[in-house]
Amino acid sequence: MRKLTVFNNVTLDGYFTSTEGDMSWAHRRDPEFNAFVQDNAKGGGVLVFGRVTYQMMAGYWPTQLAREQNPVVAERINAQQKVVFSRTLSQVSWQNTALLKGDLATEISTLKRQAGPDLVVLGSGRLVAQLAAARLVDEYQLVMVPVVLGAGRTLFEGLPERLGLQLLSSRTFGNGNVFLRYAPAG
Amino acid sequence: MRKLTVFNNVTLDGYFTSTEGDMSWAHRRDPEFNAFVQDNAKGGGVLVFGRVTYQMMAGYWPTQLAREQNPVVAERINAQQKVVFSRTLSQVSWQNTALLKGDLATEISTLKRQAGPDLVVLGSGRLVAQLAAARLVDEYQLVMVPVVLGAGRTLFEGLPERLGLQLLSSRTFGNGNVFLRYAPAG
Repeated sequence: MRKLTVFNNVTLDGYFTSTEGDMSWAHRRDPEFNAFVQDNAKGGGVLVFGRVTYQMMAGYWPTQLAREQNPVVAERINAQQKVVFSRTLSQVSWQNTALLKGDLATEISTLKRQAGPDLVVLGSGRLVAQLAAARLVDEYQLVMVPVVLGAGRTLFEGLPERLGLQLLSSRTFGNGNVFLRYAPAG
Repeated sequence: MRKLTVFNNVTLDGYFTSTEGDMSWAHRRDPEFNAFVQDNAKGGGVLVFGRVTYQMMAGYWPTQLAREQNPVVAERINAQQKVVFSRTLSQVSWQNTALLKGDLATEISTLKRQAGPDLVVLGSGRLVAQLAAARLVDEYQLVMVPVVLGAGRTLFEGLPERLGLQLLSSRTFGNGNVFLRYAPAG
């Protein structure tokens, strides 16, 4: 059974993006934290996106700008297997990306039963809420960034019932980020 | 100059209370955490409330039930100095409570300049957002409780601009709570 992990930067008021989709607050340059992110992502895995996050990522990582700004991550993420869930997209141009149009929980359950690398959801708030509700998420990895936005999009909007979690580990960084790992409780 | 601290339990999606005002998710019995809370509150200080949180607290702590369930905290909080901001309340019945009706930022600035114990805001989301915007909060103490509500009230609703913070310290508890202390950045 493949594991499904959610990885996201979140503000102290619980948002993974501003109302307008801005995530620049999450980029807190710090060698220790950058090394951690690269190491944490090294395992690879299949990246899972909703449409909004996919389009944002696909508009940046394949570009020359990304190859200059973030050569290591750009090379890896472009080569990595990716899955995007969308009912409105008709095709995807980012390399190694599969477009899935079926029911999210059914498709993810099928993927989890197949052999292969683990699945990692980045961003994609609507997906996270639905996958959390369907109890398909095995681990939540949240980077608590020391900023408050006042408004934004939560990862768990519309979750129909409370989700109890169990803290697995925590790590504090010099730039003030706190990395928290959780599994669903009991 | 007196210090103003905000102390709150928050969920991983950034809420200090459910939409209906439920905070029961924050009561995660654990001897280590209970000892910490009692010790953290030992310094006393003047408690600062908005009307909603005041009415909830004033409806519990002076009762016989509270004295039976939480004798140590009940005795202390009933004896403690308290301030409630409300334009609609005409009187307050909880002992040692002052009702303030003036402009929040002005009143708090005045209080901070007076001699006396430090000020601590509990709950009171609307107050926190306004005090944060007015840059009157010296320290944010957040207990990240390992639960997701999906909906609720954020401490920072309506904050007009981003608030950058600096992590002061973190502590992890056996019950999965993570206590984070922040000061406003630079």
